[in-house]
Amino acid sequence: MKKIKYGLSVLGLAVGMATGGVSMSVTAAKPTLSEEDFKKAELHYFQRCAGCHGVTRKGATGKNLEPENMLKKGQKRLEKIISLGTEGGMNNFDDLLSKKEIANLATFIQMEPPVPPEMTLSQMREHTKEYVAPKDYPTKPKHNRNWQNFFVVIERDAGKAAIVDGDTKEIIAHINTGYAVHVIKGTEHHKKDHVDDVGRFWYTIGRDGKVNKIDLWQTPDKMLVAETKMAYDARDIAVSGDGKYVIAGGYWPSHFVIMDAVTLNPLKVVSTRGYNTKGDYVNEARVAAIYTTPNESTFMVAVKELGQMWQVDYTDIDNLRIDHIDSSEFLHDGFFDPSGRYFQIAANASNKMVVVDTKTRKLESMIDVDSLPHPGPGANWIDEECGPVGGTTHLGTGLVSVWGNDPIGHPDKAWKLCYEVETDGPGAFIRTHETSQYVWADQLKHPEPEIQQSVQVFDKKTHEIVKTIRVTEEPGKAALHMEFNDDGSEVWVSVWNRKDAKNPSGEIVVYDAKTLKEKHRIKGLTTPTGKFNVYNRIHHKT
Amino acid sequence: MKKIKYGLSVLGLAVGMATGGVSMSVTAAKPTLSEEDFKKAELHYFQRCAGCHGVTRKGATGKNLEPENMLKKGQKRLEKIISLGTEGGMNNFDDLLSKKEIANLATFIQMEPPVPPEMTLSQMREHTKEYVAPKDYPTKPKHNRNWQNFFVVIERDAGKAAIVDGDTKEIIAHINTGYAVHVIKGTEHHKKDHVDDVGRFWYTIGRDGKVNKIDLWQTPDKMLVAETKMAYDARDIAVSGDGKYVIAGGYWPSHFVIMDAVTLNPLKVVSTRGYNTKGDYVNEARVAAIYTTPNESTFMVAVKELGQMWQVDYTDIDNLRIDHIDSSEFLHDGFFDPSGRYFQIAANASNKMVVVDTKTRKLESMIDVDSLPHPGPGANWIDEECGPVGGTTHLGTGLVSVWGNDPIGHPDKAWKLCYEVETDGPGAFIRTHETSQYVWADQLKHPEPEIQQSVQVFDKKTHEIVKTIRVTEEPGKAALHMEFNDDGSEVWVSVWNRKDAKNPSGEIVVYDAKTLKEKHRIKGLTTPTGKFNVYNRIHHKT
Repeated sequence: MKKIKYGLSVLGLAVGMATGGVSMSVTAAKPTLSEEDFKKAELHYFQRCAGCHGVTRKGATGKNLEPENMLKKGQKRLEKIISLGTEGGMNNFDDLLSKKEIANLATFIQMEPPVPPEMTLSQMREHTKEYVAPKDYPTKPKHNRNWQNFFVVIERDAGKAAIVDGDTKEIIAHINTGYAVHVIKGTEHHKKDHVDDVGRFWYTIGRDGKVNKIDLWQTPDKMLVAETKMAYDARDIAVSGDGKYVIAGGYWPSHFVIMDAVTLNPLKVVSTRGYNTKGDYVNEARVAAIYTTPNESTFMVAVKELGQMWQVDYTDIDNLRIDHIDSSEFLHDGFFDPSGRYFQIAANASNKMVVVDTKTRKLESMIDVDSLPHPGPGANWIDEECGPVGGTTHLGTGLVSVWGNDPIGHPDKAWKLCYEVETDGPGAFIRTHETSQYVWADQLKHPEPEIQQSVQVFDKKTHEIVKTIRVTEEPGKAALHMEFNDDGSEVWVSVWNRKDAKNPSGEIVVYDAKTLKEKHRIKGLTTPTGKFNVYNRIHHKT
Repeated sequence: MKKIKYGLSVLGLAVGMATGGVSMSVTAAKPTLSEEDFKKAELHYFQRCAGCHGVTRKGATGKNLEPENMLKKGQKRLEKIISLGTEGGMNNFDDLLSKKEIANLATFIQMEPPVPPEMTLSQMREHTKEYVAPKDYPTKPKHNRNWQNFFVVIERDAGKAAIVDGDTKEIIAHINTGYAVHVIKGTEHHKKDHVDDVGRFWYTIGRDGKVNKIDLWQTPDKMLVAETKMAYDARDIAVSGDGKYVIAGGYWPSHFVIMDAVTLNPLKVVSTRGYNTKGDYVNEARVAAIYTTPNESTFMVAVKELGQMWQVDYTDIDNLRIDHIDSSEFLHDGFFDPSGRYFQIAANASNKMVVVDTKTRKLESMIDVDSLPHPGPGANWIDEECGPVGGTTHLGTGLVSVWGNDPIGHPDKAWKLCYEVETDGPGAFIRTHETSQYVWADQLKHPEPEIQQSVQVFDKKTHEIVKTIRVTEEPGKAALHMEFNDDGSEVWVSVWNRKDAKNPSGEIVVYDAKTLKEKHRIKGLTTPTGKFNVYNRIHHKT
């Protein structure tokens, strides 16, 4: 199997080859669309393209798609790229969009991007809804299920979150959320005064900026307790350690919003537009990731295009302290080390892992890894030689990179590559558990169905792949994202129904974490994506 | 004499009355200008209007001047307003601009504002110039003058700074600076390791964003040692307490820039665009004032339209800590209390004095004062009843407001109005000295020449005005801005030659601080404005 390894810089070349280098005259008549087609194409662009290329099309993880560049490519070539994708990381869309929709999208990106609107705090507040009044919140669970082993599962293309009972494997609710929820975070309550209900409340953020609050103590019909909207395009959310605040980050407008964790009422909005590490102004400086720091009263806000981590202190939001930590552009997704002091985040198109010391609020280190690192929820474990380590998959190559992450106990190994494991294909997610001898990596980004549908498992001791698991063989399906259950005895893997994304034909396959054998298939899910086990996420059992 | 007292909220009404309420049809043909006239009007707008109304014309201290509003007023009415000004604070321009220039300006503001360009860090660096190499800086003064009693004087319309010998009253240099320098700041060196040269270097910031470094130890022909440019429109500058950094604030682009204090090379740029205290996004969020904090390693950056003081920690500019202190919109000019802990700044169109505690980096208090407070360099003194107090003049009314500013020694008086002194007219500057029994206030904003040309002096003990000093009687001249000499024995007052602003027909009048009698007239200055006595400014002897 030929290994795939393209960085973003060669995408242009790869595209040229894939499409046979068709070129059109730049002096052709200006592309136009009817108002109706323009609106539809704008929606499709927002749903399928803006994530990588930006609402204003300036490019980020994906290429710049402004008219000047697109007119040079021309209608036919753009249609081919959108239909077939590129080997460098862009998906094919011929299974999701019709030929006419693709043609209109190709025309749309040759036209001037519509100016996206701003969103004021007052506008956000108009979206705040209470489904269950806080005074009516139950004081103990209204069911006898083991809610700490619940999995909250993103059903991406349904705009829902499923609640799955980890003990019985039953889907007990499909809760309406925003479009294509990217991340879900639970209450952590670092201060132990409400320790009983730690992990009870979960917050979802939709691609459309919609925020929902879920109460796992409720009966399924009442689990959705509150809602608001904080942006037109958003990606991540977090809950403060004291349980008082929820913070969500916008792609557009580029800002973060601090909300009351009880009511979801937006309290404070802070713009992230600014200058990148080179000193160039970036109007679309998107918040890619937000986390609450386990040991400090702060949030980590990753401002993607600025190459800055903003450590936001929530102890006094009227006198808001922010430490702007310069690192590297295209910050995307990250995870803490086991001590909770160091935050490890991918600067994807810079091919680096960035490490921030949340205690000193300064940059700790930058580790050169391979093409487009993407750890997803990440993985930490103990290596015999290097001591505590962290690892990441890469979107651009089939490789797991592993580095030392214990600067106090193993200073000579810290923030240096310990070893690498070659996998069959580029992937988006890595995962392990403290009780497991294995590390799991998916291969979502490989174009071959056989590889895209398989995850690989390697041994923490030998560093060798011990098993390649074909999770599904159904055409149009892909395997992705692993999550352990509460005691680490099971690994849950998602199966995306890409070609049938509107229907609940996706599933989760449950494996025995020791024998690596299939135990169960949970059916009836629509494009199940991220899965969040209550106990593991709250206690950072990675 | 009828007292003038208009807040910004009634400016619309005042304008309507002054111009007889002329109105034109909105459906008239769109106003246009030739490219040449447009360019000229754009320059005039930038030089004369943008300061109050904003480069993008969204309004700030002045009204919103976007085409939607301007088209309703129409050509004739706009010409009248520009020619005659308004009683609410807008100057008349018929003495500065020709009829044709005024007509073109009236047309210009009915047209879409040109989109102002961004400025990158690399572009700024291209402007950095070295006139004297740091290795060639003298190790002791190259003249025998008492440089600690020098006055650095802004010659506004000449784009120069004059160096005046406070002992001999000689003008020893006119140094080329940016256009209409607003503020000049000297090195303070809070760390006393270079105590000998404290106050030696001075930094100017032009309205055009040009930054110049002046070395008072040099011979006059070599005093200008370095230069750069950090914005297209700027207002304030400061030097870090350790002497390492210079920071300047931009009106457009709305940002601040940290430079190497030796070479002026721009090191770091931070955008100030963001959300105001109401949660509305402001693209033109201008830096109105910047100060170095006497007791902390921080700068105070006043972001006018956001209503936020940003306390910027300069100990590690790669991990830049900023505390965003919410207060009130239209922050403009401020000064420290005598302890150096509290920063007192006018939020002018909010009619408030805002107080920040630079030790806790939090809002300390907001004091309701009168219409458009404007302290300029400010004044602190001791009151028999209230203890330590601070005071401000107002642009909107003839009133000096005085408040307690010693929360530790006089907690019951702190941040409350102690008393008010009525003056004959609204003014821009107040000043005193610890050795003086008097407080001086100008009346620059009164339309009557007799008042505009007079400053008033009141007694710290009786709170009564003891003398009204007619500084000049020449037509087209105005009196403004007081500064004491090193030992407090003299008060220097500027005389603006408004009608002859291109020529050196302005002057400084020197008064005996005790007898209040005229001692000397220093002639040959072009629109002398702010004056900075080296010793007083460095030691905060206000």
